[in-house]
Amino acid sequence: MKAKRVRYIWIPLIIIMIVVPVGFYYVKWSESGAGAGLYSRLWKPEPIFSYWDPDNFYESVKTMTGVFKGKECVSCHAAVTPGIVNDWRKSRHSQAKKIVYCSDCHGHDHQNLHLPTPKICGGCHTTQHADFNDEKRFGFPSHALAMDRAQDAKHFVDKPKAEVTACLQCHSIATKCDSCHTRHQFSVAEARRPEACITCHSGPPHPDDETYFASKHGQIYLAEGDSWDWSKPLRKGNYKVPTCAYCHMNRGKHQVAEKSIWKFGLKQVNPLTSGNEVKREKWVKLCSDCHEPDWARQQLTKMDAERKRAWKKLYAAEGILKDLRSKGQLYPSAKQRPPYPTDSENSFFQMERIGFFEGQASAFYNVSPIERDYFNMWYFDNLGAYKGAAHGAAEFVRKGHAAMDSALENIRRNANVLRTLSEAEKKAGIKPEADAFWKQGEYTDYNRENN
Amino acid sequence: MKAKRVRYIWIPLIIIMIVVPVGFYYVKWSESGAGAGLYSRLWKPEPIFSYWDPDNFYESVKTMTGVFKGKECVSCHAAVTPGIVNDWRKSRHSQAKKIVYCSDCHGHDHQNLHLPTPKICGGCHTTQHADFNDEKRFGFPSHALAMDRAQDAKHFVDKPKAEVTACLQCHSIATKCDSCHTRHQFSVAEARRPEACITCHSGPPHPDDETYFASKHGQIYLAEGDSWDWSKPLRKGNYKVPTCAYCHMNRGKHQVAEKSIWKFGLKQVNPLTSGNEVKREKWVKLCSDCHEPDWARQQLTKMDAERKRAWKKLYAAEGILKDLRSKGQLYPSAKQRPPYPTDSENSFFQMERIGFFEGQASAFYNVSPIERDYFNMWYFDNLGAYKGAAHGAAEFVRKGHAAMDSALENIRRNANVLRTLSEAEKKAGIKPEADAFWKQGEYTDYNRENN
Amino acid sequence: MKAKRVRYIWIPLIIIMIVVPVGFYYVKWSESGAGAGLYSRLWKPEPIFSYWDPDNFYESVKTMTGVFKGKECVSCHAAVTPGIVNDWRKSRHSQAKKIVYCSDCHGHDHQNLHLPTPKICGGCHTTQHADFNDEKRFGFPSHALAMDRAQDAKHFVDKPKAEVTACLQCHSIATKCDSCHTRHQFSVAEARRPEACITCHSGPPHPDDETYFASKHGQIYLAEGDSWDWSKPLRKGNYKVPTCAYCHMNRGKHQVAEKSIWKFGLKQVNPLTSGNEVKREKWVKLCSDCHEPDWARQQLTKMDAERKRAWKKLYAAEGILKDLRSKGQLYPSAKQRPPYPTDSENSFFQMERIGFFEGQASAFYNVSPIERDYFNMWYFDNLGAYKGAAHGAAEFVRKGHAAMDSALENIRRNANVLRTLSEAEKKAGIKPEADAFWKQGEYTDYNRENN
Repeated sequence: MKAKRVRYIWIPLIIIMIVVPVGFYYVKWSESGAGAGLYSRLWKPEPIFSYWDPDNFYESVKTMTGVFKGKECVSCHAAVTPGIVNDWRKSRHSQAKKIVYCSDCHGHDHQNLHLPTPKICGGCHTTQHADFNDEKRFGFPSHALAMDRAQDAKHFVDKPKAEVTACLQCHSIATKCDSCHTRHQFSVAEARRPEACITCHSGPPHPDDETYFASKHGQIYLAEGDSWDWSKPLRKGNYKVPTCAYCHMNRGKHQVAEKSIWKFGLKQVNPLTSGNEVKREKWVKLCSDCHEPDWARQQLTKMDAERKRAWKKLYAAEGILKDLRSKGQLYPSAKQRPPYPTDSENSFFQMERIGFFEGQASAFYNVSPIERDYFNMWYFDNLGAYKGAAHGAAEFVRKGHAAMDSALENIRRNANVLRTLSEAEKKAGIKPEADAFWKQGEYTDYNRENN
Repeated sequence: MKAKRVRYIWIPLIIIMIVVPVGFYYVKWSESGAGAGLYSRLWKPEPIFSYWDPDNFYESVKTMTGVFKGKECVSCHAAVTPGIVNDWRKSRHSQAKKIVYCSDCHGHDHQNLHLPTPKICGGCHTTQHADFNDEKRFGFPSHALAMDRAQDAKHFVDKPKAEVTACLQCHSIATKCDSCHTRHQFSVAEARRPEACITCHSGPPHPDDETYFASKHGQIYLAEGDSWDWSKPLRKGNYKVPTCAYCHMNRGKHQVAEKSIWKFGLKQVNPLTSGNEVKREKWVKLCSDCHEPDWARQQLTKMDAERKRAWKKLYAAEGILKDLRSKGQLYPSAKQRPPYPTDSENSFFQMERIGFFEGQASAFYNVSPIERDYFNMWYFDNLGAYKGAAHGAAEFVRKGHAAMDSALENIRRNANVLRTLSEAEKKAGIKPEADAFWKQGEYTDYNRENN
Repeated sequence: MKAKRVRYIWIPLIIIMIVVPVGFYYVKWSESGAGAGLYSRLWKPEPIFSYWDPDNFYESVKTMTGVFKGKECVSCHAAVTPGIVNDWRKSRHSQAKKIVYCSDCHGHDHQNLHLPTPKICGGCHTTQHADFNDEKRFGFPSHALAMDRAQDAKHFVDKPKAEVTACLQCHSIATKCDSCHTRHQFSVAEARRPEACITCHSGPPHPDDETYFASKHGQIYLAEGDSWDWSKPLRKGNYKVPTCAYCHMNRGKHQVAEKSIWKFGLKQVNPLTSGNEVKREKWVKLCSDCHEPDWARQQLTKMDAERKRAWKKLYAAEGILKDLRSKGQLYPSAKQRPPYPTDSENSFFQMERIGFFEGQASAFYNVSPIERDYFNMWYFDNLGAYKGAAHGAAEFVRKGHAAMDSALENIRRNANVLRTLSEAEKKAGIKPEADAFWKQGEYTDYNRENN
């Protein structure tokens, strides 16, 4: 018997010996596509990507020939594009002992210029670049992973490029430093101000913009911020109120993940794990730059209470959806709608993905109405309420919870309709067919043709 | 006969003699709860309330012992919390002949500190404090009554604390002066700028923020306000455009109610009563600081026309709801849903409250969908249109009325559905049961457990 | 035969000879109404219009008598309305060699004052006024035509004055220069800043405000703009980032139409006509003040792709509606609802107007729900996505397309309901009557009484 068992061990071993090299080959083959990520072979880049992911896609303009020294760049561009030369003149680059010229970042050969990537900037700014990369170990959401995760996301491939192109504009935070330190001053002072962050951090899924400015901190900044000395480092006593960077990048640390407890509010966490208690103390210490430590603790407690309440509502909605799924009452069901081209699991085993852990994050499209309602409740209303609680914007908490209540009520009502319909059909012996609309799969088909 | 009648007079007299003392006792007993108000015994305060209603709830930190003089507070806190000391140094408190030290407002004993309440500030700032209190005679909405009315509101008790906590953050305007004059500069200049007001006065039910900044006044402030001299009093000739305080607290009067005609737009008023004509002339006089008096009069006429139109729509919706109620066609009806724990009248006589005068203001929750639709139409769309008209933000008038039209259309359509259903049920002899969802009463039950 | 044919030519000739003079007479008779435009006889002006369309409606205040010299105006108004005198003192008008006094624009006789119109300002500012008028040849939307087109629009007559009054506040850009150069500084610097534009250019149909400030350009302006020298002309090298005026009124040209390709996004255009290629090159040249020309080209390509995608969705919705119309399945149909009082064509031949080219722009009201849904999809969601793409506000593209997807899904679903209902009614021999609500025609009736 023992001998026989030993012989069986060869089966998994052989499987592993085949699967592992094939897996490696598959990943390598995928990455030979455009940009980064497993799905990159399924799409081709738009010309505009050359500016958002310059390392992968930028091609130098060819209209100008010649190899130039830094001073020559400046003297010509002072006439061609005086604005950017003005900026550079105001920058520390131009005022440093060893002047940093255009050519130090872009190259000398005008036929073969490049756009600076974090790696290039990191050549001098080593600490910042190291901090920035260090963020990766905390996983997504993360500045450093933003581009890979966007380009590689299922919905990037599944959605029409005309729409997802907009996403990459912000996600390029990972591939170029001038998202925050805009060209060509690359100012530290600029990045200390909230405006540097909120070009991206605004709008329904992450209203950091709206909630910060709705807070007392934000309003004091708006009224008085212009008169503050932004050359000062982000330390206690230097600023009347905190900005985004003061709290999330205190003392200029280019790593925003290490204090994050609830992250974007995308899933429920236990805010009282020992790990989170450590983070909590970091927050209390930071808030104590101005407030009583107890004040800070109570603000965090209040936020946890808000989160617990939000997830009570979200789980109620998830429960309704999962109950419908278990009885086959979602319409159109996963089998009645086109699979995502990239969701290989789904092409074998079609199932509605409900909730964060089943991967609903990718299910922006081709879902049934009630699933979409839950997606909106979770991704927009919930995240808005969270940011309201986190940034001290009371009105956003109220608004977010009112929207969640309304969404939950709708989901309950529509679930009843689906149940009634399904039972009526069962009795009448009707087997519902999905509409042509669903079978065609608006997004999927379009993308098959266009991506 | 006469003698007999005299004898009957004892019945009401005896009732009064019993009821009045019981009433007084009831109020006293209620108030022995947490905070102020009749319903305060039904809830217990959250720790964070200690900062928002310090007079009732603040307990001093105990981690630090000792009795200190003002100068000692400063010298230590310059290191511990330098930001707030910086602020104080810029304040008039630190530059006055008789310096106002930390301890003058917070006390000397570090084991027994307090947070300043309006009463404490009013010790020196007597005029402002008197003005502020004077507002109470105009009733709610009012800064001075904001905290009592929020803590005491039925929906404060009925709603989950995790949500209403957010409300108190703004309503603390009544219990601490630093809602507008933020610590520790307590600057007059700050409170003259709109940012001081809009941390609270923004968002759907009172978009003062959005409508002011959408007006020409607001835009000129945004473009140029930073260069104005905010140390000047709020009088004609000192500011290019008015801010919130210029119009509502002209010459620094800490009383915002005395010119108010439509208040928040919560109910229809007759804008042409003799009382309102007096208020109107106050506005015309104020606007005439810059505009032709006739211009001001026509703006007010335009606002009245907008209000009349709005109430035409709102009453149309109320009429539909009251008609449904009279025929027992609201579903779920008041009898089919859980009563609010605080609504004692409703526990004896269950009736849907429709419109402002029946107390719909408290009916945020546990109402039927069509009642909620009307609540939203009245409380959000209507109030937004009003603020648009009042602040000269044309786009908000358009948007608010478009939303009201849409809401009215929905209510009409849904009322038809309810009528049809009700009649069909009557014919078929069906007596509808409310869903379990309604019987459980999401908010009510949760609060019974958690408040 | 030939002779006979010749005789027939008299029929159209006679018709023309009658119709043309009648037409001229009709237009003349119409214009003898209030304000400008064919429909002006159908309404009477509100008093407030006197300030928004002063040329047509302003009547001088009569409370003050006397004929004054400029200096006298100033000396008196320095006490009565010091704010506006302060403004004037800061203006170039007061500092010019030949001082421009109040009376130069308003007249000398206080019983017979006037408000300055573009024609009066154009007396000195001839280039700007000529540019401004030149815009008319590009048709609507246009600053110079804004007032005529609003006052003359069908929905201005059809809608309650209490609501459309709000529209005129912005459309008065055509009839007075202080929409951008506010009184009484009339500052060039002011008009170079975005705040000058966004009092009007904000809100759902044209979120220029929101999309500019959501862009990197806008955020850099917000953070740093206060420190720039706004006295400099709008030319390359003078500003770190462009404002509205920099791109749309470059070098101060008071004509915003000549570079416009997609205009407001109201209809699909071919962006690659030779005419549009010329405009495109103007944009590329402008963007090249700071960016690589190729960057500019790709941004425009990206915008075209977004537009193409948007119109794919809009045409899909239009197709559904036209299909319903062809089968008589729209409910209530045009025949079941009241005609617009101004739509003479519709009173003879009642037809639902679907899409831009059939004049749906006027169909704000009295339409069936599914038509209104399409109107909102087209006028709000679509235009928002466009402005997002045009101004580099990625989040608005995402949001606009998500809203369009959702609207299209709704339209599809509701179209199915309408089809099912219509077929069921046909089988059952039911001929549907429109609700009283529809027959009464909320807007139309109200206006008949009130306009």
